Amino acid sequence: MQLQLALDRISIDQAIDVARQTEAYIDIIEVGTSLIKDYGLRSVREIKKAFPNHIVLADIKTIDEGAYEFHAAFKAGADMATVMAAASIETLEACYQVSRELGKQMMIDILEEGKEKINRLKTMDQAIFCIHASTDQSEKNVLSKLIQFKYDHPTLNTLAIAGGITLEDINGFKNEDIHIAIIGSSITKARYPDKAAQQFHEEMH
Amino acid sequence: MQLQLALDRISIDQAIDVARQTEAYIDIIEVGTSLIKDYGLRSVREIKKAFPNHIVLADIKTIDEGAYEFHAAFKAGADMATVMAAASIETLEACYQVSRELGKQMMIDILEEGKEKINRLKTMDQAIFCIHASTDQSEKNVLSKLIQFKYDHPTLNTLAIAGGITLEDINGFKNEDIHIAIIGSSITKARYPDKAAQQFHEEMH
Repeated sequence: MQLQLALDRISIDQAIDVARQTEAYIDIIEVGTSLIKDYGLRSVREIKKAFPNHIVLADIKTIDEGAYEFHAAFKAGADMATVMAAASIETLEACYQVSRELGKQMMIDILEEGKEKINRLKTMDQAIFCIHASTDQSEKNVLSKLIQFKYDHPTLNTLAIAGGITLEDINGFKNEDIHIAIIGSSITKARYPDKAAQQFHEEMH
Repeated sequence: MQLQLALDRISIDQAIDVARQTEAYIDIIEVGTSLIKDYGLRSVREIKKAFPNHIVLADIKTIDEGAYEFHAAFKAGADMATVMAAASIETLEACYQVSRELGKQMMIDILEEGKEKINRLKTMDQAIFCIHASTDQSEKNVLSKLIQFKYDHPTLNTLAIAGGITLEDINGFKNEDIHIAIIGSSITKARYPDKAAQQFHEEMH
């Protein structure tokens, strides 16, 4: 399991500072949607520049203009970018094509999308599917979403999981063959982010 | 019918330049998703500053973190902001609440969402529902989408329409009681944007 650190609702400098404190324990640095919308793709450029040897994911949450947004995100230095499963098939295909051409990685954010739409995306076998409990639905349990998803889509096996994940949750994921666990405030808002990241890292391995 | 000018895939300075050329004919200036993702909310701040007497819409396409994104967009100077119908009900409600509290306007971008989800949003009677043919689906006819939407949801009557609309399309909308027609490249990519905007304005009135 890889640890993806989600950086959200802070300045670019604060994001670089948190990533610097925790870099020994994290595999992927996520430039959160809020950083991209607040500061633009400058956020991706500056964070990739600060961490050239880390995988950087732009959580750009593309829902239209797939080729334009994915080209822009990758040009800014992202190694991975996100598209919403709620986008049209044409948009998803455009994102997938740009990613494959450039040797980059696409992550599909499932969020609210149902079984039928996901079934239409199964040919995108190099994509990572991200099971995501929305920030605005904090009461929803991401583990139950994961179990349902694996039941509905047993052949999709490159999975990420996101949404208010705590250290205690990790234990529940251990036997679920998760590729990436996305952790945000459990690390970024911890009193000692480095210690928190280390604990997640140790719990995952 | 109001004319909303969508500014996309250009620099902030170019956006201000096109809006300056056309301002006499447009009612709402849309800071497109691409400007927000490329340059951040600075794009909204600078365009509102340049056009303090125009209605400015931030096409922020919120799909999570509703309150955070809507507060940020309105703080940057937007009078209107967009949320995706594909977002969770909790996110949509958060956006609606922030908009009502601040006396601002919410536009719901339907994009791919179906009848069942839209039915759940009918209590948001101060929202504008935007029927939207995706940029990545250029062959899809926005007028047929509109007619289907009005058939499915006869009580939702504050409607906007977007997606590759040409001057010829306007005639087809005239009897459809559309509140806002959103025009992008038909004006911004015209040889003379001011003339194009004037033609749309005249065709609409």
